[in-house]
Amino acid sequence: MTRKELVANIRRKKSFLCVGLDTELSKIPKHLLASDDPVFEFNKKIIDATIDYAVAYKPNIAFYEAMGVAGWTSLQKTVNYLEHYRSEVFLIADAKRGDIGNTSSQYAKTFYDKTYSGFDFNAVTVAPYMGEDSVTPFLAHKDKWVILLALTSNKGACNFQFQKVMTPEGERYLFELVLETSKKWGTPNNMMFVVGATQAEMLQSIRKIVPEHFLLVPGVGAQGGSLQDVVKYGINTQCGLLVNASRSILYASAEKDFGEMARAEAKKLKLEMEAELKLYGII
Amino acid sequence: MTRKELVANIRRKKSFLCVGLDTELSKIPKHLLASDDPVFEFNKKIIDATIDYAVAYKPNIAFYEAMGVAGWTSLQKTVNYLEHYRSEVFLIADAKRGDIGNTSSQYAKTFYDKTYSGFDFNAVTVAPYMGEDSVTPFLAHKDKWVILLALTSNKGACNFQFQKVMTPEGERYLFELVLETSKKWGTPNNMMFVVGATQAEMLQSIRKIVPEHFLLVPGVGAQGGSLQDVVKYGINTQCGLLVNASRSILYASAEKDFGEMARAEAKKLKLEMEAELKLYGII
Repeated sequence: MTRKELVANIRRKKSFLCVGLDTELSKIPKHLLASDDPVFEFNKKIIDATIDYAVAYKPNIAFYEAMGVAGWTSLQKTVNYLEHYRSEVFLIADAKRGDIGNTSSQYAKTFYDKTYSGFDFNAVTVAPYMGEDSVTPFLAHKDKWVILLALTSNKGACNFQFQKVMTPEGERYLFELVLETSKKWGTPNNMMFVVGATQAEMLQSIRKIVPEHFLLVPGVGAQGGSLQDVVKYGINTQCGLLVNASRSILYASAEKDFGEMARAEAKKLKLEMEAELKLYGII
Repeated sequence: MTRKELVANIRRKKSFLCVGLDTELSKIPKHLLASDDPVFEFNKKIIDATIDYAVAYKPNIAFYEAMGVAGWTSLQKTVNYLEHYRSEVFLIADAKRGDIGNTSSQYAKTFYDKTYSGFDFNAVTVAPYMGEDSVTPFLAHKDKWVILLALTSNKGACNFQFQKVMTPEGERYLFELVLETSKKWGTPNNMMFVVGATQAEMLQSIRKIVPEHFLLVPGVGAQGGSLQDVVKYGINTQCGLLVNASRSILYASAEKDFGEMARAEAKKLKLEMEAELKLYGII
């Protein structure tokens, strides 16, 4: 999917909601456990329930891997199911991968190359620590995106991301240097950055470095970030935001009405987003 | 496996060789392609051929993921096969994972919790960018290890790992700060660090920060690092090194003799290691 298509979907759906599919067997409604593939049955229902309000889905790969071969199979079925909605959905593998070049090439095949792995994601989240040649293999795939970690929403972001580094241009936080350096590896048409919603006040300085790029923003809802603050400091003329919600939607109910409750939660977020999009003249 | 047991294996086998299982369908001998699971057949033969000379095996998870469900199945069979050799083999998932706490917990289950995922690795490689709470869930599993990226062997290590950061104690390279900070999260009994062999000259300053920890050293062989330099600057009183070789062993021959040739290559490395262990009085 191109940036133009993504922006068109945002305008049409009046939403920049990404639904995180962090599906856990221990949290899904008990009545699903009798089915052959409870994780897939759950995801299918969540997708159907939220498709009107979401422009992106983001399976969190850890939750599938943790179930071994069975989990990987559930992920494959989920991705296949999303084929029904392919033109209206930006599909992100939240995998936080990154390794030396020939290994990153394999990870890129995993998530981008359907003939090879079975998957056809639009984007993968990638960790920056190993530098340029750990990221560029993901950018070598036509029409695919890298979403690079910049500033994350967790407490541990303080350990390294907020360290002051000295550059020829002056002092920077490490995450600012990551943005400045890595934006040269791609373009706003094939790179996005992860910026946690709990760091909303930092979005102003981030937007000075990457005014045009899309930002993937986790941490609204369960992690405590504010949608309004994220928009205030992070929105740009093409929206430029994908805001993720996972647990607040997936586990809105643990009963048979989980689909309806997930839909209601997604709709609530969509209406908030619609108001913001209007406020800032995007729609 | 405890550190004591690992050191005992090193002394007994007179080797600190880790064989990296970066198995690629396009590189394995053609006659294997007719079998039901060529990747597993290849790995089985490589393991049998090198077991006398290796104290560790390190499947590179990217190469299995890239084949989707089939690859994940080959990995499972490879790990099951290594059960035959369990007491003499330290088993590393080279996965470069790391995410917020509840997601890292899932990755830890993936690789450590056999009842959950089918896997029972001794260690996982983890990326440091997201900080403490992205790493500690891996340390919560009894007798399991984290191998944290510190200084990698690729060109992109220069982008961020060699950036100068300012700390209250003075200037540091980022990778030095990663070592200083993260060593407090665990102990030499449950943490190791990745240090690329192409950075051998940095091992002296690394050893000042982490004198006791084991270091996992990739980059000898295909990537051009020198075993003798790694030992000179990196060895400690309990060896403290696991040196990885992948392509030079796996693809020593593309013919039916690939097992014998892999064994010969592993033996060559083992004999070099044995000489070093004697030189430094470890055996």
